[in-house]
Amino acid sequence: MQILKSVKEMQEHALELRREGKRVAFVPTMGYLHAGHESLIEEAARRGDSVVVSIFVNPTQFGPSEDFRTYPRDLDHDLAVCERNGVDVAFVPAADEMYPSDYSTFVEEERLSAGMCGVSRPSMFRGVCTVLVQLFNIVFPDVAIFGQKDAQQVAVVRKMVRDLHFKVEVVASPTMREQDGLAMSSRNSYLNEFERGDAAQIYQALLKGKAVPDSGQLSADRVLAEIMHHLRQYRRLRVIYVHVVDKDTLEPLREVKPGKTLVATAVWCDEVRLIDNIEL
Amino acid sequence: MQILKSVKEMQEHALELRREGKRVAFVPTMGYLHAGHESLIEEAARRGDSVVVSIFVNPTQFGPSEDFRTYPRDLDHDLAVCERNGVDVAFVPAADEMYPSDYSTFVEEERLSAGMCGVSRPSMFRGVCTVLVQLFNIVFPDVAIFGQKDAQQVAVVRKMVRDLHFKVEVVASPTMREQDGLAMSSRNSYLNEFERGDAAQIYQALLKGKAVPDSGQLSADRVLAEIMHHLRQYRRLRVIYVHVVDKDTLEPLREVKPGKTLVATAVWCDEVRLIDNIEL
Repeated sequence: MQILKSVKEMQEHALELRREGKRVAFVPTMGYLHAGHESLIEEAARRGDSVVVSIFVNPTQFGPSEDFRTYPRDLDHDLAVCERNGVDVAFVPAADEMYPSDYSTFVEEERLSAGMCGVSRPSMFRGVCTVLVQLFNIVFPDVAIFGQKDAQQVAVVRKMVRDLHFKVEVVASPTMREQDGLAMSSRNSYLNEFERGDAAQIYQALLKGKAVPDSGQLSADRVLAEIMHHLRQYRRLRVIYVHVVDKDTLEPLREVKPGKTLVATAVWCDEVRLIDNIEL
Repeated sequence: MQILKSVKEMQEHALELRREGKRVAFVPTMGYLHAGHESLIEEAARRGDSVVVSIFVNPTQFGPSEDFRTYPRDLDHDLAVCERNGVDVAFVPAADEMYPSDYSTFVEEERLSAGMCGVSRPSMFRGVCTVLVQLFNIVFPDVAIFGQKDAQQVAVVRKMVRDLHFKVEVVASPTMREQDGLAMSSRNSYLNEFERGDAAQIYQALLKGKAVPDSGQLSADRVLAEIMHHLRQYRRLRVIYVHVVDKDTLEPLREVKPGKTLVATAVWCDEVRLIDNIEL
């Protein structure tokens, strides 16, 4: 496995791969890799000849009161995970090459980014789009793999790629879960054992919501009510939102369209902000 | 000469050129081509194996009260100019492919765009950056040629390309002028013969300004005063700004740094907004 740290090296290596006609599959990450990331890397290996994983905690997608400083980092562990999973290139750029002190260019998707997590984290998707445009211009991927756990991010990135005509296929890979159903996330490391128990109820709540259309009742209100009712029983959980939306446009739906609908939630578990979603 | 109208055709052709190892030189235009554009095309031919010219009046770089609807258009003339100048591909995209009705992604350079023309035309550079990211992702140029007449645009584009790591060389080509010195612009077609006479004084004023450091006096204030004094003698001209700035950062300067300084102006000539600049 190659470990590349400079933008120039990575660009040259990526162009060389293209000249060789290799299909480049890219997994952008913020590191602290877990089994969810490993499944993205496996998906990348299935879809490309060469797998590039970037490890970069992107400062522009954190708000001023968010956890950029405390976000978990463990590069040695991450490189071992990459190596073990057959990654060809780990790209670990320096912050001052991605965002030099005079940095001033930002990319913003304005429609799909506005609701859901965009309400309480207004700069997050702008940071995500900005760093991805940089990374796409450095790695020149044919395909980029994202976790379906970040469903709104997937929809925003798809839209940004389409609007800006990037020649990159965007693939969403299924959410990986702990045994109790909790969606895997680097931020789960913030949870103590009591919080961990309540956090697992987020997925249980989503399953209760899913049972509604599964039993033939398509009203979005009923889905939301079931989920809210379940979540309110756990005292460490406070709901930020639960939305039933079209899975591509993220427009709120009155009625579930089976196979085209997402129910997504963001919840505070004490001081830890967790998100999850499932398809209906 | 090939005339390509769809994004997909242009992307495929551009990728084919890359596979053949050809160097692609790109001239993005809004059409109504004049001798200034021809000089950009000549520069492109010197710098690339294949010259691509885009012709697209970009709606997002016009403000709501600006001249998008009345901007001069003459595609037959433009294609003839391209053909005559040995252009390989004229790319003439449809507006609804560049900006479908649900379009929602924008690229903004926030620092160099803020002053000068960005004050009275706050959305212009956002529109320019957005369409250029699209075009770069469709044409995959090695080098892109811009007119030095739009000096702030050149600086903003250079910054955007650097910040987002586009692998595109940005070249500024010297301003072409009419015999009386008026900088060539598609918008000059708006001027009647009386306005045309006053408009030519903009360049004369810049030359008066340039005479100041040429005679050894480096104070930016003196340069500005000379230019203002000259412009005010022509009753159709109203000054929007005159700035002495660093030619790369566009930061205002107190003292002229010879070879690294730009004096730039925007002037209303009756109802026509004209810009010009020269290096000091």
